[in-house]
Amino acid sequence: MECILCALNPRLAAGHCAWANLIMAGGKADNSKSKANTKGKEKEVKKETKLGLSVKKDDNFGEWYSEVVVNGEMIEYYDISGCYILRPWTMSIWEVMQAFFDAEIKKMNIKNCYFPLFVSPGVLQREKDHIEGFAPEVAWVTKSGNSDLDVPIAIRPTSETVMYPYYSKWIRGHRDLPLKLNQWCNVVRWEFSNPTPFIRSREFLWQEGHTAFASRTEADAEVLEILELYRRVYEEFLAVPVIKGQKSELEKFAGGLYTTSVEAFIPNSGRGIQGATSHCLGQNFAKMFEINFEDDKGEKAMVWQNSWAYSTRTIGVMVMVHGDDKGLVLPPKVAALQIIVIPVPYKDANMQGILDTCAATVRAVRRDNFAKADIAIDGLVEKVKELMDDIQQSLFDTAKLKRDACVVVAKNWGEFAEALGQKKLILAPWCDEEEVEKDVKARTKGDMGAAKSLCSPFDQPALPEDTLCFASGKPAKKWTYWGRSY
Amino acid sequence: MECILCALNPRLAAGHCAWANLIMAGGKADNSKSKANTKGKEKEVKKETKLGLSVKKDDNFGEWYSEVVVNGEMIEYYDISGCYILRPWTMSIWEVMQAFFDAEIKKMNIKNCYFPLFVSPGVLQREKDHIEGFAPEVAWVTKSGNSDLDVPIAIRPTSETVMYPYYSKWIRGHRDLPLKLNQWCNVVRWEFSNPTPFIRSREFLWQEGHTAFASRTEADAEVLEILELYRRVYEEFLAVPVIKGQKSELEKFAGGLYTTSVEAFIPNSGRGIQGATSHCLGQNFAKMFEINFEDDKGEKAMVWQNSWAYSTRTIGVMVMVHGDDKGLVLPPKVAALQIIVIPVPYKDANMQGILDTCAATVRAVRRDNFAKADIAIDGLVEKVKELMDDIQQSLFDTAKLKRDACVVVAKNWGEFAEALGQKKLILAPWCDEEEVEKDVKARTKGDMGAAKSLCSPFDQPALPEDTLCFASGKPAKKWTYWGRSY
Repeated sequence: MECILCALNPRLAAGHCAWANLIMAGGKADNSKSKANTKGKEKEVKKETKLGLSVKKDDNFGEWYSEVVVNGEMIEYYDISGCYILRPWTMSIWEVMQAFFDAEIKKMNIKNCYFPLFVSPGVLQREKDHIEGFAPEVAWVTKSGNSDLDVPIAIRPTSETVMYPYYSKWIRGHRDLPLKLNQWCNVVRWEFSNPTPFIRSREFLWQEGHTAFASRTEADAEVLEILELYRRVYEEFLAVPVIKGQKSELEKFAGGLYTTSVEAFIPNSGRGIQGATSHCLGQNFAKMFEINFEDDKGEKAMVWQNSWAYSTRTIGVMVMVHGDDKGLVLPPKVAALQIIVIPVPYKDANMQGILDTCAATVRAVRRDNFAKADIAIDGLVEKVKELMDDIQQSLFDTAKLKRDACVVVAKNWGEFAEALGQKKLILAPWCDEEEVEKDVKARTKGDMGAAKSLCSPFDQPALPEDTLCFASGKPAKKWTYWGRSY
Repeated sequence: MECILCALNPRLAAGHCAWANLIMAGGKADNSKSKANTKGKEKEVKKETKLGLSVKKDDNFGEWYSEVVVNGEMIEYYDISGCYILRPWTMSIWEVMQAFFDAEIKKMNIKNCYFPLFVSPGVLQREKDHIEGFAPEVAWVTKSGNSDLDVPIAIRPTSETVMYPYYSKWIRGHRDLPLKLNQWCNVVRWEFSNPTPFIRSREFLWQEGHTAFASRTEADAEVLEILELYRRVYEEFLAVPVIKGQKSELEKFAGGLYTTSVEAFIPNSGRGIQGATSHCLGQNFAKMFEINFEDDKGEKAMVWQNSWAYSTRTIGVMVMVHGDDKGLVLPPKVAALQIIVIPVPYKDANMQGILDTCAATVRAVRRDNFAKADIAIDGLVEKVKELMDDIQQSLFDTAKLKRDACVVVAKNWGEFAEALGQKKLILAPWCDEEEVEKDVKARTKGDMGAAKSLCSPFDQPALPEDTLCFASGKPAKKWTYWGRSY
């Protein structure tokens, strides 16, 4: 169906109709004059304002993505490379997810706080592995006005080192535990590799949770509880299927004990993408920052810590998964605009009559599959609600079918290399040795980027005893997903 | 009434009871043994943990304020001067105000967005008066990792120059207007004058609204609509009385046309404080950033712009106004914890009996005036709700009485100087000349800081025709509030 709104208002983004999950037309929707008029105008509009998409998703995915987020008015490119303007459509999606997640963590008795944007160098460098992971990306403030600062000050790339000196101060006895804080904030990672809106940007918005417990059991349990919330953000809100699992030693969070994640996959680019991470930090930071407490037996003990985060990257994943050649497709649960009601005027028509009719006859066109249906006015609200639920579910089902169709099981190097060449999401038996992963990276280096482990899924297929690692030929310890990634 | 919670848990901040507006005790509240025991323990606790306040509000206001915000666990001092950690109690107050304000501006069809933290120098410097106002406080990023950036990048002190190049891009015709955006974010002003938690910090949280209209009439109307929301934040939520008015030419926003504000006053320090500002920017930024549009007659025109903001400073004003020698006093509307129910145990008591009684007998103690009342269990909920409304109103009334008692009308320099010496909020007839304000500043310079104009209240007392300016002796044009300020 041609969109009359585009024709009526040339300044509307062509992508705007993506924002509505259901377009309900009242009046003579099939009138040929009207259609012809609209078509003609729309072409004119596209030519004049360049708001249509000039490439197809399957032809040039990168260019398509960039056009969708810009023409759909989610993103505006900014005059500093790697920084992007998040426009109102983006913020409304972010706010829906934020409302859900914030309420859920409040139920878990996690409280919001706000720590400073700035970190002093001494504190930043206290945990060696951690700073090695982040140092190359840290932005430094060295001047204010015309004066040089005595000591350069870093901008947080993440807040472990910002927060934990104060955890050390606040935690004295077991009654101070657990300490469970979260903040919604911006962070800065001055990366030089390909910036991509939402997916890889120098500044982004996120929440970061930082918790401390008396026992590892409690920390372990929370890691999974948070990971489940991340799954729900992706699957229930963004309708994007994800795999829950554990990262390899090489891919885990710098300075942490182990990292769990939800991993998504983009069929068009053949790349995995880390959707959100929930880390158990163990006692490593506790040791470096001296976060000790007197336990209930009066003995000195060290806390167990977690940190976990999801960012505006979620929105990019959603666009990549659901968007089509007409632009954005948004799941109803995060769409600011769920329904557009369009009175369809045509030449010589009685406009008032049409407007009146809008309240009695309704033709609905779904944004996801463009199916049309005439809905009687009786029970309209109920029917539309059902349609919304159906669109949400069917977006997820379709995305899952496409994702699953990309999964290939590779049992040896030959199968692995072939599947990688076909941009697949590869499930392979692995010996779980760090040197072997490094070797896989080295052997797959190239223009497209090396392959790496994405995660070892919690949901493990059977692994017969004599199964060998696809890469080393040693006995396999687990099934692991591999592929190129963002 | 002594607080048993402090005695039961030595790690609770002494200020904690400030967080509850009403303490409801069940059991034998007046039992003398219990009181004695509790008193003894509380003293011990204070000595041990240093959580009590060591100074009185009237004796050393600055020290008192610092102790209240730290011991009340709203703020933790940070290892970078002028930066503070906002702890959960603070964030819960901020979130209450945010929920109110965000919903109100959404009703006005203002949409949220997020622009980058960073500004390139060329853009930052485009509006001359504006950058002159902010340049000395701008923090500059010059390095990432170990590499120098090609061009230093500024951190936003406010976002006019960040946003308006894109307003220029997005606004073409009158149908694109009004453009009304808001963002919730952090900003950085690297000030060197006395940092004070909430009141003057190098990084703070705020909302900043930026709107563009086709006509001045629309812009003028919005300035006042937003200012009214700021008044409500202060008066209805924080129970702090404010004066609405217009800033002088000397005190208006750098680069703007005129600035309106809500002004609060802190009786203890004798200083006014700018509570929030709503600026009409006129067409000055539109000219510098070329924000033009084709009006409905097809003629080229320039937009009229506003910007407006309130920050976490609001919370500091509230603490200063309501706090007492026992610590924080929070208006019920922003208190995370409104009621604490305390079973009061005593020696040889049947603990279970007391707990049972808590559900039947209730003695209430208000945090604001410590008034005690026994409330029957019948209608308890209703009665408590009434009490909360009464506390909210009476905090405002008390604050207003105290503020009003500080107002002095000064008709000549002698009266003005005397009132200033007494740390009053001075209402004086003024000729409204910039040179005269500069002269007042010069003549009142000293250890305490110079006096300046705070605002010309919209609510103007009668000004007889022959009234002369208190400072210049020229004919007075208006009544203006003067004083020292934060």
